[in-house]
Amino acid sequence: MSKISVAVLGATGMIGQRFIQMLEDHPYFEIEGLYASERSQGKKLRDVLKVRDHVYLDDTMDRTIEVMDIAKISKSCRVAFSGIPSDLAGPTETELAESGVAVFTNAGSHRMDANVPILIPEVNPDHFESIKDQPTYKDGGYIVTNANCSSTGIALPLVAIDKAFGLKQVFVSTYQALSGAGYPGVPSLDAVGNVVPFISHEEEKMESELAKMLGTYSGGKFNFAGFKVMANCARVPVVDGHLESLVLDLDAQPTLDELSKALSGFRGEPQKLGLPSAPDQPVIVRAEENRPQPAFDAMAGTPARARGMASTVGRLRQSNGYYKAFVMSHNTLRGGAGGSVLNAELAKAKGIL
Amino acid sequence: MSKISVAVLGATGMIGQRFIQMLEDHPYFEIEGLYASERSQGKKLRDVLKVRDHVYLDDTMDRTIEVMDIAKISKSCRVAFSGIPSDLAGPTETELAESGVAVFTNAGSHRMDANVPILIPEVNPDHFESIKDQPTYKDGGYIVTNANCSSTGIALPLVAIDKAFGLKQVFVSTYQALSGAGYPGVPSLDAVGNVVPFISHEEEKMESELAKMLGTYSGGKFNFAGFKVMANCARVPVVDGHLESLVLDLDAQPTLDELSKALSGFRGEPQKLGLPSAPDQPVIVRAEENRPQPAFDAMAGTPARARGMASTVGRLRQSNGYYKAFVMSHNTLRGGAGGSVLNAELAKAKGIL
Amino acid sequence: MSKISVAVLGATGMIGQRFIQMLEDHPYFEIEGLYASERSQGKKLRDVLKVRDHVYLDDTMDRTIEVMDIAKISKSCRVAFSGIPSDLAGPTETELAESGVAVFTNAGSHRMDANVPILIPEVNPDHFESIKDQPTYKDGGYIVTNANCSSTGIALPLVAIDKAFGLKQVFVSTYQALSGAGYPGVPSLDAVGNVVPFISHEEEKMESELAKMLGTYSGGKFNFAGFKVMANCARVPVVDGHLESLVLDLDAQPTLDELSKALSGFRGEPQKLGLPSAPDQPVIVRAEENRPQPAFDAMAGTPARARGMASTVGRLRQSNGYYKAFVMSHNTLRGGAGGSVLNAELAKAKGIL
Amino acid sequence: MSKISVAVLGATGMIGQRFIQMLEDHPYFEIEGLYASERSQGKKLRDVLKVRDHVYLDDTMDRTIEVMDIAKISKSCRVAFSGIPSDLAGPTETELAESGVAVFTNAGSHRMDANVPILIPEVNPDHFESIKDQPTYKDGGYIVTNANCSSTGIALPLVAIDKAFGLKQVFVSTYQALSGAGYPGVPSLDAVGNVVPFISHEEEKMESELAKMLGTYSGGKFNFAGFKVMANCARVPVVDGHLESLVLDLDAQPTLDELSKALSGFRGEPQKLGLPSAPDQPVIVRAEENRPQPAFDAMAGTPARARGMASTVGRLRQSNGYYKAFVMSHNTLRGGAGGSVLNAELAKAKGIL
Repeated sequence: MSKISVAVLGATGMIGQRFIQMLEDHPYFEIEGLYASERSQGKKLRDVLKVRDHVYLDDTMDRTIEVMDIAKISKSCRVAFSGIPSDLAGPTETELAESGVAVFTNAGSHRMDANVPILIPEVNPDHFESIKDQPTYKDGGYIVTNANCSSTGIALPLVAIDKAFGLKQVFVSTYQALSGAGYPGVPSLDAVGNVVPFISHEEEKMESELAKMLGTYSGGKFNFAGFKVMANCARVPVVDGHLESLVLDLDAQPTLDELSKALSGFRGEPQKLGLPSAPDQPVIVRAEENRPQPAFDAMAGTPARARGMASTVGRLRQSNGYYKAFVMSHNTLRGGAGGSVLNAELAKAKGIL
Repeated sequence: MSKISVAVLGATGMIGQRFIQMLEDHPYFEIEGLYASERSQGKKLRDVLKVRDHVYLDDTMDRTIEVMDIAKISKSCRVAFSGIPSDLAGPTETELAESGVAVFTNAGSHRMDANVPILIPEVNPDHFESIKDQPTYKDGGYIVTNANCSSTGIALPLVAIDKAFGLKQVFVSTYQALSGAGYPGVPSLDAVGNVVPFISHEEEKMESELAKMLGTYSGGKFNFAGFKVMANCARVPVVDGHLESLVLDLDAQPTLDELSKALSGFRGEPQKLGLPSAPDQPVIVRAEENRPQPAFDAMAGTPARARGMASTVGRLRQSNGYYKAFVMSHNTLRGGAGGSVLNAELAKAKGIL
Repeated sequence: MSKISVAVLGATGMIGQRFIQMLEDHPYFEIEGLYASERSQGKKLRDVLKVRDHVYLDDTMDRTIEVMDIAKISKSCRVAFSGIPSDLAGPTETELAESGVAVFTNAGSHRMDANVPILIPEVNPDHFESIKDQPTYKDGGYIVTNANCSSTGIALPLVAIDKAFGLKQVFVSTYQALSGAGYPGVPSLDAVGNVVPFISHEEEKMESELAKMLGTYSGGKFNFAGFKVMANCARVPVVDGHLESLVLDLDAQPTLDELSKALSGFRGEPQKLGLPSAPDQPVIVRAEENRPQPAFDAMAGTPARARGMASTVGRLRQSNGYYKAFVMSHNTLRGGAGGSVLNAELAKAKGIL
Repeated sequence: MSKISVAVLGATGMIGQRFIQMLEDHPYFEIEGLYASERSQGKKLRDVLKVRDHVYLDDTMDRTIEVMDIAKISKSCRVAFSGIPSDLAGPTETELAESGVAVFTNAGSHRMDANVPILIPEVNPDHFESIKDQPTYKDGGYIVTNANCSSTGIALPLVAIDKAFGLKQVFVSTYQALSGAGYPGVPSLDAVGNVVPFISHEEEKMESELAKMLGTYSGGKFNFAGFKVMANCARVPVVDGHLESLVLDLDAQPTLDELSKALSGFRGEPQKLGLPSAPDQPVIVRAEENRPQPAFDAMAGTPARARGMASTVGRLRQSNGYYKAFVMSHNTLRGGAGGSVLNAELAKAKGIL
């Protein structure tokens, strides 16, 4: 079976590089071309990549590939992964969809659009149906977004809990990694030995995206879930991996053991379908008293292709009728490029690509 | 007026050194002697201090003072400040109180004892009355504790809010500094580029101490406040200063402006009495979108003697009927030695010393 | 005696703010105006300052001062302190000198110019004579530069050693702080848990500036010193304070005790003249086996106005006929704004202002 | 061919765990047992490992293996890898050698002993002959040490340079990672935002070990190399990977291109023999202006089994007749457990095991 040609947009940024990394030797997809802003186009990849950016790209990778103008996406390429910065992505992605391209994007521009799903295959695979109501769908073009990185990490355990015990309220505080701000991103003078309790629009995103994802799609529109989210977001001096503290108000009152089992036993559509980038166990529960930690748990997930695709939950506790936990997930893999790759794998499995 | 002679116990530790620092040129107190464990006693201060510990002690300080055995506290010394580690402090402090010494301690050993107050002069000055019910009081000895560092920082804004608008529930997540674990404390391999979502017994302390402090003392016992606290505690790679995220459920529904005014206008007993280490404004409200931060706000507080004694609140927001904020305070000053020094100043002003 | 009015150029940057801080209540100077780039001009200082930048400026400072266009420097102002970035400073500073302004600058643009001294008052006060050979001097205008931050820190101990024992070769490796790169400067992803062994042009600057400063000025030109400097420069995750390792080849073979005494006993012109920002002891020698460290020694220097103006030397050792040491100095105080302020104080004392 | 049974001593420490990791699926060796101090013995591995220590051990590893008393090493085990702390290793390793065990150790206790080689297979494979002069050799027991971590990293490039151009003097400053101090090791309060310019005995080790390794073994004794080493050692807030700055005085005056080729073309005995943990290219030269860096280059080395076994050199420069460079290597792999494993592989290939 021949592989599907895909374009990577915003290929030189942190998310773009993660796309390149996750698409290496991919069983379904092969990279047709790398596309980036005017500033980069016409140059070889190796000349474009900032030194720091190398982190994601193995030295063995072919860096002589030329980076091209997004306007020149090959006609043979009907699928695009977008790592374009959110403030620029909107019109470009719309145009691509209109010209018949299936766009899987990490950008936030279209997340709240009508008929555009914020898709996490374990969480709301049925939301995929919404793309059929996008005006460009009849010509093969559509847009699928993945959620914001801090929403994604907790969405996996939250959906498992919601299904089993009913979610009423979510109090979440984040300890977010620096890579979430891209490169150059956060100045080191703000990061070293410090915490910055502000990430622009992050709390608003968490409070709305989770409700959209855990809601339903019917009658041509999204019906948001009824639970409330109260978010406090902060940036900590960690390179990769978002840690989040949770206090949950539930309908039922499970024991901690029941809660733990519901989390670790949770499986979704990607696991049933055996998608290549799906972790065998999407939510890992750790019993140690001091886990999860970025240093150990950011890259959780098996098999090898699914490293960084599992969420890790630890420190399950009860307090005054509430449930407490810490959750860890990788912000540029599961919460970034990996999320969109998994979405495209689902589309392929469903025969929509 | 002659100054009151005081002993500093656990003088070589991080809190002990903060006591020495805060008592330098103090208008009420003068250090009679430094006392520490067997390991240190009989040595000169400069030989005892670990290199790192120097941080708190100015080079000009007299380091030839001898560190003495706690058992040998001078008879002329009726006041002691204790920075003894909590796991050792209990019996020593009890013995001292029994021998007629007024003990102002940062250790946690006696915080939950009957008739022993957890005192923050702006929060619960009337709890001082409880010492009169301590069996040793008639002979001049008693124990006054200050609260745990992470409880202290939010106690100041919480009491201001509780008085004005009524507190029902507190959801708090902490971003705690490394100095809170003492020296050597947290291994650097756990701290650099990492967050550890566990501090032994910290969450339990926050959930109980705040209720005790914001409660009342009457009829010879403490009546805990009725609001609930749900705490998640984590250690971040910051040297000094605890940041805490809050979500509050209030009886009233003030505007953010009313909330801000209640916080910045809050004054307590120490301000009225003009105690030397009391900050002019105990709760500072910052309007910037990204404050408070450890790098800028840990040392908040005026005048000079009160540096590190104010709490800073920022990012006041509303969400789904709840109020959100971040709070910053210095964990070894207001949340440590400074707390006990202020308690002793209150005792002096009340004529109990 | 009325104070001399001075302008601060590049007032909103990290060095500019250090100028403002060091000129507060200065006995010789008072700020006439703050000047900055087009981007800032016409705004109030408080609106211009990036949040991080607040670090240097006390909250009590008057932030309502308007920041003005450099082109509009008041006629009443004959002295300017320049914290303009080096890549922009050149022409502006030349123009100011031509219009009769005495410019004391931290920028590197003119450091290697003929007749422009790189001045450290303890090191080469006689180089001040060179300004009289600047073409603009007759009309009162001239340029005095301070050295690069990593050159400055070791220049103080090196001159003391050179005078006493003769310097032949200097092998230096630097551990430079992040503030040396300004704000936003180094991206946090490059800094957290990492070291970057490259700072553009830094090694070349060290190798040439030290030879110029420790040389002589005679016959209208600078004669560079004969010793060689071999520098390796790296950036480490430290906020303030450059640490530097030294291996020295000397003409004489002093004992370590003689070396230590030559360093701690060293005094220069600023000490003799009692300049306001001069440290009583410009080179401090620490005997502890693990000092100097950024955390403890960056702010070395007494009295209060001279904090961060002393260099600290430690770990004096001998090996194979060479001498080894570590040196610590503050890169934006002595190695930045403080250096230029001290230069202007020397000018004042010499009656040239 | 059956594998050789080996014991891992000090199995629960950082080096011990690296031994376990490097011996997983090893083609020559299989772990017979894990041995550790009294404190650990009799417990399951999973109960012994401190949480942080998990970092090196994959979750899939069998953690139910019991940790045993070193005194009880199985008779069937004739090879031991020692990760025992240097201050305890001496007598235990001597005893084992006396009882006929071949000991490959990372401890420093015996490095300077007569007839005990400090072995790096690419550097001094002929030093292996010295073990035949150890008194215990006739009964099959002997001790082979690997070098100190900071000596190892630069030994690879230095031997390549020495062979081609003759080494006269080495000026080295280190930027050493925290893992070099073990766990708990360096307190976080000394590490975060700081540099400590002192590592006990490290400079002395570098100055003597390199001369021993690059010398010869003949006539039953080691003849030290004639070049001089002047070392300055410091600890920086990096988790893994030592960076070192070099200034070299050479006999010849090669061009930088010749120097680069001598380094990247260097191959040693392990490459010729195809030893399993040998990197294809032991010294990698990077052309980028800001490499090597811990974040990117610590794990250098191919194939997979040799990750962290190559040294990376960058920033080759000339200055005043000297050569300058930065070198990066992994301190607990090539500079720790990996060094001893490679030594044992060489012994196996030479038929001495």
